[in-house]
Amino acid sequence: MTGAALGYGSTADGDVGLLSPVSASPLVAALTGDRAVLAAILAVESGWAAVLERAGLAPAGSAAVVASAAAPGRYDPAGIALRAQGGGNPVIPLLADLRKQVSALDATGIGAGKAIHTSLTSQDVLDTALMLLARNTVEALLGDLKGATTALAALAEKHADTLGVGRSLTQHSLPFTFGLRAAQWFHGLAAAGRQLESLQFPVQFGGAAGTLAAGTVLTAESTATPFTLADSLAKQLGLAPAPAPWHTNRLAVTSLGNALAAALGAAGKIATDVLFMSRPEVAELAEPRAAGRGVSSAMPQKQNPVLSVLIRSAALQAPQLLAQLHLAAANFNDERPDAAWHTEWPALRELLRLALGAAGHLRELAEGLQVFPAALRRNLELAGPLLLAEGVGAAVAPLLAEKDGRSGKEQLQDVVDRTLAAPSAEQDATYRHLLREAVPRGALTDLRLDELLDPASYLGQAAEISRRILAAYPDFSSSATPDQNGANRG
Amino acid sequence: MTGAALGYGSTADGDVGLLSPVSASPLVAALTGDRAVLAAILAVESGWAAVLERAGLAPAGSAAVVASAAAPGRYDPAGIALRAQGGGNPVIPLLADLRKQVSALDATGIGAGKAIHTSLTSQDVLDTALMLLARNTVEALLGDLKGATTALAALAEKHADTLGVGRSLTQHSLPFTFGLRAAQWFHGLAAAGRQLESLQFPVQFGGAAGTLAAGTVLTAESTATPFTLADSLAKQLGLAPAPAPWHTNRLAVTSLGNALAAALGAAGKIATDVLFMSRPEVAELAEPRAAGRGVSSAMPQKQNPVLSVLIRSAALQAPQLLAQLHLAAANFNDERPDAAWHTEWPALRELLRLALGAAGHLRELAEGLQVFPAALRRNLELAGPLLLAEGVGAAVAPLLAEKDGRSGKEQLQDVVDRTLAAPSAEQDATYRHLLREAVPRGALTDLRLDELLDPASYLGQAAEISRRILAAYPDFSSSATPDQNGANRG
Amino acid sequence: MTGAALGYGSTADGDVGLLSPVSASPLVAALTGDRAVLAAILAVESGWAAVLERAGLAPAGSAAVVASAAAPGRYDPAGIALRAQGGGNPVIPLLADLRKQVSALDATGIGAGKAIHTSLTSQDVLDTALMLLARNTVEALLGDLKGATTALAALAEKHADTLGVGRSLTQHSLPFTFGLRAAQWFHGLAAAGRQLESLQFPVQFGGAAGTLAAGTVLTAESTATPFTLADSLAKQLGLAPAPAPWHTNRLAVTSLGNALAAALGAAGKIATDVLFMSRPEVAELAEPRAAGRGVSSAMPQKQNPVLSVLIRSAALQAPQLLAQLHLAAANFNDERPDAAWHTEWPALRELLRLALGAAGHLRELAEGLQVFPAALRRNLELAGPLLLAEGVGAAVAPLLAEKDGRSGKEQLQDVVDRTLAAPSAEQDATYRHLLREAVPRGALTDLRLDELLDPASYLGQAAEISRRILAAYPDFSSSATPDQNGANRG
Amino acid sequence: MTGAALGYGSTADGDVGLLSPVSASPLVAALTGDRAVLAAILAVESGWAAVLERAGLAPAGSAAVVASAAAPGRYDPAGIALRAQGGGNPVIPLLADLRKQVSALDATGIGAGKAIHTSLTSQDVLDTALMLLARNTVEALLGDLKGATTALAALAEKHADTLGVGRSLTQHSLPFTFGLRAAQWFHGLAAAGRQLESLQFPVQFGGAAGTLAAGTVLTAESTATPFTLADSLAKQLGLAPAPAPWHTNRLAVTSLGNALAAALGAAGKIATDVLFMSRPEVAELAEPRAAGRGVSSAMPQKQNPVLSVLIRSAALQAPQLLAQLHLAAANFNDERPDAAWHTEWPALRELLRLALGAAGHLRELAEGLQVFPAALRRNLELAGPLLLAEGVGAAVAPLLAEKDGRSGKEQLQDVVDRTLAAPSAEQDATYRHLLREAVPRGALTDLRLDELLDPASYLGQAAEISRRILAAYPDFSSSATPDQNGANRG
Repeated sequence: MTGAALGYGSTADGDVGLLSPVSASPLVAALTGDRAVLAAILAVESGWAAVLERAGLAPAGSAAVVASAAAPGRYDPAGIALRAQGGGNPVIPLLADLRKQVSALDATGIGAGKAIHTSLTSQDVLDTALMLLARNTVEALLGDLKGATTALAALAEKHADTLGVGRSLTQHSLPFTFGLRAAQWFHGLAAAGRQLESLQFPVQFGGAAGTLAAGTVLTAESTATPFTLADSLAKQLGLAPAPAPWHTNRLAVTSLGNALAAALGAAGKIATDVLFMSRPEVAELAEPRAAGRGVSSAMPQKQNPVLSVLIRSAALQAPQLLAQLHLAAANFNDERPDAAWHTEWPALRELLRLALGAAGHLRELAEGLQVFPAALRRNLELAGPLLLAEGVGAAVAPLLAEKDGRSGKEQLQDVVDRTLAAPSAEQDATYRHLLREAVPRGALTDLRLDELLDPASYLGQAAEISRRILAAYPDFSSSATPDQNGANRG
Repeated sequence: MTGAALGYGSTADGDVGLLSPVSASPLVAALTGDRAVLAAILAVESGWAAVLERAGLAPAGSAAVVASAAAPGRYDPAGIALRAQGGGNPVIPLLADLRKQVSALDATGIGAGKAIHTSLTSQDVLDTALMLLARNTVEALLGDLKGATTALAALAEKHADTLGVGRSLTQHSLPFTFGLRAAQWFHGLAAAGRQLESLQFPVQFGGAAGTLAAGTVLTAESTATPFTLADSLAKQLGLAPAPAPWHTNRLAVTSLGNALAAALGAAGKIATDVLFMSRPEVAELAEPRAAGRGVSSAMPQKQNPVLSVLIRSAALQAPQLLAQLHLAAANFNDERPDAAWHTEWPALRELLRLALGAAGHLRELAEGLQVFPAALRRNLELAGPLLLAEGVGAAVAPLLAEKDGRSGKEQLQDVVDRTLAAPSAEQDATYRHLLREAVPRGALTDLRLDELLDPASYLGQAAEISRRILAAYPDFSSSATPDQNGANRG
Repeated sequence: MTGAALGYGSTADGDVGLLSPVSASPLVAALTGDRAVLAAILAVESGWAAVLERAGLAPAGSAAVVASAAAPGRYDPAGIALRAQGGGNPVIPLLADLRKQVSALDATGIGAGKAIHTSLTSQDVLDTALMLLARNTVEALLGDLKGATTALAALAEKHADTLGVGRSLTQHSLPFTFGLRAAQWFHGLAAAGRQLESLQFPVQFGGAAGTLAAGTVLTAESTATPFTLADSLAKQLGLAPAPAPWHTNRLAVTSLGNALAAALGAAGKIATDVLFMSRPEVAELAEPRAAGRGVSSAMPQKQNPVLSVLIRSAALQAPQLLAQLHLAAANFNDERPDAAWHTEWPALRELLRLALGAAGHLRELAEGLQVFPAALRRNLELAGPLLLAEGVGAAVAPLLAEKDGRSGKEQLQDVVDRTLAAPSAEQDATYRHLLREAVPRGALTDLRLDELLDPASYLGQAAEISRRILAAYPDFSSSATPDQNGANRG
Repeated sequence: MTGAALGYGSTADGDVGLLSPVSASPLVAALTGDRAVLAAILAVESGWAAVLERAGLAPAGSAAVVASAAAPGRYDPAGIALRAQGGGNPVIPLLADLRKQVSALDATGIGAGKAIHTSLTSQDVLDTALMLLARNTVEALLGDLKGATTALAALAEKHADTLGVGRSLTQHSLPFTFGLRAAQWFHGLAAAGRQLESLQFPVQFGGAAGTLAAGTVLTAESTATPFTLADSLAKQLGLAPAPAPWHTNRLAVTSLGNALAAALGAAGKIATDVLFMSRPEVAELAEPRAAGRGVSSAMPQKQNPVLSVLIRSAALQAPQLLAQLHLAAANFNDERPDAAWHTEWPALRELLRLALGAAGHLRELAEGLQVFPAALRRNLELAGPLLLAEGVGAAVAPLLAEKDGRSGKEQLQDVVDRTLAAPSAEQDATYRHLLREAVPRGALTDLRLDELLDPASYLGQAAEISRRILAAYPDFSSSATPDQNGANRG
């Protein structure tokens, strides 16, 4: 059955993210779309021409011709994608088109064609191009990620004393502060951000089999060597130099994937918490409102936490994509593998795309998050007085003499059990009463008992932990970067 | 950094498969691209209008207006994708545009707008639309898959007696036939195909919370019920009816994903075998040649087995995509989940796309596969006479009396060990000599010994197994379907 | 560093599930542990001896000797596991030990050794043994799964009228019933159960290369054929016959894995819902209490929903394990692969183990689930009157004349917006007031307005959907099977 | 059905690796088995007691009592695993048993019980214990990994001039050396090893909710703080200090998992190459022989490359296990999650186990790998003279004048095409003849043509690349460490 038969109209359209709303934005498309891939490939070929000309290995003036011919707008991605089936990668058909463009532009016949792809292999070009694309994307991503951490740091400070309840295996555990929660969100994101910042994006240059054979011939009578050419290309493109070809060792790719997945994991943890905390029954948080966001097709009153939904949807996809990259690495047989390499490209690109998309939404979420201290307090109180039983026990057990063969600790467990047996509304009074009964005032004043039963007195090092976390990542909490991505994000 | 700053030109382009050559074809794009998604959503809305009008629940004539408004070409996928971020799914913005189109077309004011989306929720529409898209894709996929199995069945018959060597853990195991290998390839593919054929593509209709509340109100004074409307929609779209809404139970999706992954797994097994068998050192097979295929950017003499590389690249991606679908299912919380649903869409679409792309290449591979019996035979002989040791042992051991405390079986192991110690070129003679030495001619004639040392005599049930396999799937070996997809495949 | 140096004491201990509490039970260990694997391998070898003897292909009496020698207690799993490194699978060393046992037991020298493994290969034995183990495990699993569905069906009936709120993207959507939620839980589980029931567990018999060569020699002068022997083995072991060897086509394995993952997915969806609904802020459900369950090491008052935590922990692991099985299938090169087969075993066993473990906990959860109708009602009321806006709109919009250029639908959206602007506590009154203001009593009586504002009036087909679901799986709601597994579960 | 009914005998046995031969060894069991987990948990509790006593926060002498009570041999892992279902983790029941042991050993009543677990939560203990176990395992793993890299470095040097053929997409690409292949194997492994060396294994201490509340009370009247206690514990156990609790931020876990997966990926790439290169048709390599290794249950002459099979089987499992860790991280909701944490444990342990098991086999493989230069040369020659076409073209094209409108490059492509049309055996002569015909002797001497047609002249920088790679990781090529693990490996 053909597309036409199905009434689908023209099939030349590309995919624009209809099924992946988390990353459907102009910025993401500009940095990671097929047009960006094509531009990156052309940038590598063009950069190489410049390197060759500078080294005296290509005719004077050829780099300028190639640069002009390498304008991405001259090429048809759809046609190249289709023809890529022939050789299995897009570099081969693109090269053919590039040669034609150069030939046409080389009006004075300087032989600019000699500057194209000489002594490179398609893996050199595609690996380097994807590193270039990744570097650009990670740079933009770090901008949004730091926007988010800066906002979270501000929340941590603002809410250092905002009481709430800690939760463990879904149940209330101990008094907590919203400030510490925000600080721990910051912690996860900043640590992942630092991992992203430490990534290397190395240039690839090995030639057809990874021996630099053609490059050796090319430079035979030159002061350049294949290694100096590779270093020049790295410099030209702003990539890291590579001491040796890495065509069969994919640590640069898996490390990149792992850092992206870690960032998405940290974002996913935050989104998951926000999704719970903004449920109507909990109501401790709300996402920032924006026109047209959170609407439902059927329910006029609903306000969905869409930013968190989108972020979480990206986070749930990252682990499988990273697995794909590692699976490729483990299957990188021979000097160029028989399929593994091809499985890297879409997984790597999708990870970049999800991370960048999610980071933009996360920044917006963090910058506009609405916090409701009263609800945080209400849920804390819902937990009842036994939330403080750990602290009470630590303070009171040593004051109790053994009684009927039961230790102080055991007596307090009895108090807890009896309190649990009372109706919720009476547990406060019951717990205080039973404790008062158990310990003579001489050992424990009413004032001290009040203090023990005040959640604010049992926050441990919440403030100090927050402070330490923020101090560990100073460059993530004082971002002066305005949201330049925003305008492009849509 | 913006796209413009990077010199990427217009960012409105969509992705056309530059990084996924296995599925970069007009057919795949027509059936699975964003435009196809949009068309499927519109087909559901349009089908629903028809159902409502027929049931007397929408004004007469409204279905025709909606159908006309629902022409996919009227809509801008990129704009809809961008606006989908607001509600988290593409149905919501598309609906707004559809309403405008209907309003504009409803020149006579029959109130056609009342036929749009009434009592549906966006999940109803998107789930049903993806089932529609899946059904179309699986249908086309089965065409190519049966083309491939038909070709494999022919190879199995043609090469029923073509001797080769069986391989186990990379080493030679026993004599084999290429016919049986082709039959087992057929077996894997046909069994997966049958699983695909048995899939259900159910319609989804539950309304905002899965209670059919709005539908109940809608049909309150009608002879229709929400259930009869759902059945009509199924019929209208050629989908399976569903006894109840399945909005939170994703078995239809995971079963579909599993069948697609199984088909890709069977294809991947074949491609992996072909990749090995067409290596220069093995040379038992070669892919069909085609102009421009298999070329290298650096090595003029290379002929890469690109069809198999592409197929294998798809097969190595399927498992992770299927994991994504199951992970979504396990996280389908509440009446509509807070992210899991959103992670299903891209994974399901990518599986469909890879399967359809790979099936086309597999058909071409199977139909044009070049088989080299001489090479098959040469590699069989390379294995030396010990390849027959199992059969020789079974026949000869019972003929040997115990000797020096060693059983017949142990004596034969000695023969094997002494043969292995001889140079390869002499193993044939050595083995025969040692056997002749061990067994008196009275117990084993020279003729019988020759027979035992002829690989063709130790093929067991190779032919019968092939016959049984082909007989088990008659509809997969006599496809009369010409390759209609081919023309569109590129 | 050695174990001794680390003070770890004896290293002969095996793993007992310390890090996998969901499946740490005697029943799971008995059905899936290494001892069970060993027993299954021995059962295959023993069954084969019986088949051979019955076919006159092994000495009379040999099956009994082999059966006696095949008592699992005679073997040392740890030693066999260690020696399995030599050949890459456990059958090889186990066979060596079995031969010794048979030799020792064959006191009268009937030649029982001839009945062992004759014409089999280790893949025949291990594939068949794992199918046997899987069949036993799935059988036990279905017992627990039906226990769970029966309990859920009872909840669905009991709570058919228990009002609660439906949730979508974390927000309240429409009135719902707990009965329908239980019915949908039942739905997911029963559909997955039916998929499990339809599984085939085929016997594997192909010989060293899948040609049945040795079996052909063995049966040369017999009325038996390799195919009849395979069928006899299937019958002997209670497995499904296989029309042909499936050594390189793993659909039986991936289908099994997919069904297990689907069951775990359905269980995971339920557990995820229970985890949310039993949170203190929601409190609609509570897990059954049991001595020692749900305790915390630090917080004396906590009662964790441990059953759901364990079930969800299993569900989150299944997708990756299934991916492993499909990845193996796609890499099943040659007649026996060079690693893929080995990656199947642990993944398949772990899936069986997680599914059985989770099913036991799920049964207990379903049978003892505490439902709190008052809390369900409270959370429904929390949603405010706008939860009914969809239904009110459908009923009221047609009654409104256009006013100031705004349609009835638009006027009602204004009412919704104005209601949303009121404080929560006043929304009920505000909404009613604004509606009353908008529609004259003539068009809408107070009684009808009351009805429209009663959540119980907007349940759509909740009851009928439940009824249809239960009716579709009658054998899953009337399990007479007592919890026989329970005693062994611990 | 019960285990007894199935005749499985005692079910108390644990798993010993029957289905995971790659890691079935005493060393792996000692470092990663359930007994090792239990020992690590006890080491944490015991280390904590020492920390408390030193800080004056537990009675003098209590650390010694706890240390004595913490001997792993005193505990029953199976019983603890079963009881772990109650609270969801093994720390809770183990603690109960530890308290009993301490109580029994505290003969003089010093109150040693006060030193147990005070102010810790079970996550503190289990997270820290798994870091301890991971640290020990990674240490042993690095020993084997460096043994392997040292052996590969030696192969790289020994075979710097051993000619072979480079392969790309399964086809021959250019002349290569086995030395460079070994150097690139070294490269992948050493880079992954360096990543392993840079891992941090941080201590975890946060208390019940991550606020250090109990620790704050505990140290209220002491010079110690919770932070100094945590640092002391890190020192005591040889772990890294942590600036703040990381209970909800799992970067330490995902980074560990990623490094293990990367090491397994590098090992898998090597194993995959060895599996191919040791195939009978290729025969360039053979695994080291050892008694009982590589045997088949059915084929007496087979010698399977079992080490590589086992290594590859581990490498194919790692990606999914890493995905599990990242999935857990993304789902780490609240202050302790409702299932995600529980899914980390088995995945992390299995990754450690596979990596350690594979590293041992890889070391043995690398140290004993048999290299066959004659076969490497034969396969190089099989490629025919066109393997040199790239180099010939680069040297000869500039010498050719345009002819009949075809450039030098195009004329050479004609030569290639005509050579390809000749029978294999004649391609050498044909290519030389056609080249001789195309270029006058004045421009290209016979001597220079000979040189161009000698593969050894077209190795580019093979030797220099190898040298650079080895120089980049000096500590990975001069391991003085004897194989201490070997003795324990079995």
